[in-house]
Amino acid sequence: MSKTRGKPSTTHPFAYPGLDRIIHERARLGVLTSLFAHPKGLAFNALKQLCALTDGNLSRHLEVLESAHLIEITKTTEQSRPQTRCRITAEGRRRYLAYLAVLEQVLCDADSGAKSQTRSGPQRALSSS
Amino acid sequence: MSKTRGKPSTTHPFAYPGLDRIIHERARLGVLTSLFAHPKGLAFNALKQLCALTDGNLSRHLEVLESAHLIEITKTTEQSRPQTRCRITAEGRRRYLAYLAVLEQVLCDADSGAKSQTRSGPQRALSSS
Repeated sequence: MSKTRGKPSTTHPFAYPGLDRIIHERARLGVLTSLFAHPKGLAFNALKQLCALTDGNLSRHLEVLESAHLIEITKTTEQSRPQTRCRITAEGRRRYLAYLAVLEQVLCDADSGAKSQTRSGPQRALSSS
Repeated sequence: MSKTRGKPSTTHPFAYPGLDRIIHERARLGVLTSLFAHPKGLAFNALKQLCALTDGNLSRHLEVLESAHLIEITKTTEQSRPQTRCRITAEGRRRYLAYLAVLEQVLCDADSGAKSQTRSGPQRALSSS
């Protein structure tokens, strides 16, 4: 991924406005990463297991993600059992990738900080801790 | 940084329990990254500018970080003016680095997902978007 896409503003370099709050919430970040890694979609129960969420919690986060058009939810019946399947949308992929670029920027800023500490004194650098 | 420190559990690979909620909140992530990059500390006003926060917001987040022993706050007087200075603690550095390792894991998981999509079809990979 490019190191420039998540580039911060020069006046507020540590503001990170690109850390989209809908995606940044920890459980939703797990759900979206999971769906990004499984583009054909995942069943509700598989997603629940992968992300260690309860039925209620997962339902709530899926609603938020669906309302933001980041995922689509389909309900079908398989062998007389209702099945809920979730899939990341094209919009979801686009926004998730933009979010990842900002995460990369955070890592990059931290790494720069660690390097400057190595140059200026004996403090532990990012790479050595 | 090691790629193994943030390694997820095999049963819940997308749960990311290591994304410490105190650090993960967007504004506090900015504040902590900023203080990590400036180990000698920063004055309140400089921090406010770097992170694009209001006085009230910054104060609130600093309180949370101080209560969690991630930063220390000192109040002095310089040229008859009160000065508030913030600095990351050793504990703060340790926990921030552990948090960064989990962020790296998220990027790594997303990258694996993108690669599997490249192998399985014509969908856009992480590296090409």
